[in-house]
Amino acid sequence: MRKKRIPDTMTVAVLNSYSGADALSIEQRPIPTPAKNEVLVKVAFSPINPSDLATLTGYYGLKNPTPIVPGGEGSGEVVSAGPGAMARYFLGKRVACTGWGKGGGVWSEYVVKSVKGGVLPLNKSLSLEQGAMSTINPLTASAFIAITKKGGHQSILLTAAASSLGKMVNRLGRNEGIQIVNVVRRDGQVDLLKAQGSNIVLNSNEAGFEQQLHDICHQTNTRIAFDAVAGPLTNQLLKAMPPNSKVIVFSALSRQAVQASPDLLIFENKMVDSFWLGPWLSKQNLVKIMLLWKRAQKQIPSQLKSEIRKIYPIQEVKEAIRDYTSQMTGGKILLRMS
Amino acid sequence: MRKKRIPDTMTVAVLNSYSGADALSIEQRPIPTPAKNEVLVKVAFSPINPSDLATLTGYYGLKNPTPIVPGGEGSGEVVSAGPGAMARYFLGKRVACTGWGKGGGVWSEYVVKSVKGGVLPLNKSLSLEQGAMSTINPLTASAFIAITKKGGHQSILLTAAASSLGKMVNRLGRNEGIQIVNVVRRDGQVDLLKAQGSNIVLNSNEAGFEQQLHDICHQTNTRIAFDAVAGPLTNQLLKAMPPNSKVIVFSALSRQAVQASPDLLIFENKMVDSFWLGPWLSKQNLVKIMLLWKRAQKQIPSQLKSEIRKIYPIQEVKEAIRDYTSQMTGGKILLRMS
Repeated sequence: MRKKRIPDTMTVAVLNSYSGADALSIEQRPIPTPAKNEVLVKVAFSPINPSDLATLTGYYGLKNPTPIVPGGEGSGEVVSAGPGAMARYFLGKRVACTGWGKGGGVWSEYVVKSVKGGVLPLNKSLSLEQGAMSTINPLTASAFIAITKKGGHQSILLTAAASSLGKMVNRLGRNEGIQIVNVVRRDGQVDLLKAQGSNIVLNSNEAGFEQQLHDICHQTNTRIAFDAVAGPLTNQLLKAMPPNSKVIVFSALSRQAVQASPDLLIFENKMVDSFWLGPWLSKQNLVKIMLLWKRAQKQIPSQLKSEIRKIYPIQEVKEAIRDYTSQMTGGKILLRMS
Repeated sequence: MRKKRIPDTMTVAVLNSYSGADALSIEQRPIPTPAKNEVLVKVAFSPINPSDLATLTGYYGLKNPTPIVPGGEGSGEVVSAGPGAMARYFLGKRVACTGWGKGGGVWSEYVVKSVKGGVLPLNKSLSLEQGAMSTINPLTASAFIAITKKGGHQSILLTAAASSLGKMVNRLGRNEGIQIVNVVRRDGQVDLLKAQGSNIVLNSNEAGFEQQLHDICHQTNTRIAFDAVAGPLTNQLLKAMPPNSKVIVFSALSRQAVQASPDLLIFENKMVDSFWLGPWLSKQNLVKIMLLWKRAQKQIPSQLKSEIRKIYPIQEVKEAIRDYTSQMTGGKILLRMS
């Protein structure tokens, strides 16, 4: 059993209160030991996702008492295993790991994770950089397509469509013959998506947006929307779509309350629903999740690829967050753990 | 075949534009003749419902070009029948009639209605006054209980709970062993509902309302709300209920957009849905509707009774609406058609 030399302490990013990036500090902590059915992962890379920003301010749904270690997903190598056949199976393997459940977030040089959902084996063909971004966005985009197909829809209305996730949904949609009606907030994002092959892209800040969106949603019979923005935009989506439509809110980049006109809800049978990856996955059976994971892995070099804008060492996490926040649609920012 | 003497013209309330009660006028019009499968009803009484107020300002979901005749439901006697066995069956019978579909609203001395859903036979034991209010509120209250039971719920959160409909839901709930958590806007309404036997009644304008509502919804595991108010109150309901709850918006007395915090939707799996009686009925099979109707008729003298505050002749419809609007929870205002 080969075993990498493991030092005594590790570098960790710690959030000391739910008050944003300024509450982060870099600390040295003892390296934990994996218990039964757990492995120790030497973390390579972790992206900054919108859900990480939500975690920093206490907006995210999982909220343990501070201090906590943030970081929703990452990649690395399993360098030590606790008792159990599954744990031993992972030893030496390259994995994607999630920041949920025992062991906490992955903005840490090492992290202990359960073999039951905390780590997933990475395809040999994937770099650790792409592997670090292989769970949250790829599985979310795959879930959106699954929900869309299950509902018998042939088109999707999508907001914040120029995000990494948005681009994935566009590429998957093209692959599956599903039309994406894209909504973005700047002309530059319109150009970017069109350059990548998306034919319907609207700027919500442009005059005539509501009428254009209405016409397109009716022409394409678009009755399902995935909304990352919330606030008044949600009501614009509800208003634009034909009767019997649904907006699925999955993020709240505007940090505003969803608005929904009662007359649209009552008289046009429109609905506001929501999506959160963890609970959605937990409602699928294990076989379906493994298929989803295998398929997503295959698609990561193509449809589910994330562009990388810059890589920062974990010590510069605050600077990395500032950079990401200033330009969220120009490619991902990765943290390098050592 | 006995046939009442039918004059040539009738008195009708006409809405000339969707600009409120001031746009109403009283006119004389020729009395229409029933075609095949239609009957002519000599209307006795019609209530003023919140949905009528919504119709007057163009807020309601059914919006034909003006001029229109308002009036969502009423009672009367069938005085003439067009060809067809069903139409002849109704001749001479006392009926409840709806303001939907062909023939339009019932604020009219006579109205032609289809025998397919436009008229329903009234129990002999019911007065024409109670019969005039036997469709919209009784069937809505019955639908709420049906939806609640189908969802396996044992309690309901209800807003505008001191309304005629609210009182019906309370009485039906007691009858069925379903706890009602009532929300009203004034202390007088708290007293009124408590005097009628409701044990949980909260005033949303009182200090500490949100915390009280939270505690009660958690103690009673209340996860379904029927909301007639919308606006910020909807979010207070979402916030107070345990995870996996649903607010069903069925009216918008506040005339404000529904507010819903994205974190409640996404991280607590809460949902905003809606209810409209017509489409709900049309999704049920005919046997179920007839059972619902028969049962509602039996319960109108007890659980589904509406209190009457005052009766106005149709000529005074504007005054009647002013009176109703000034005090919507003190019993119904009826219009007498002749």
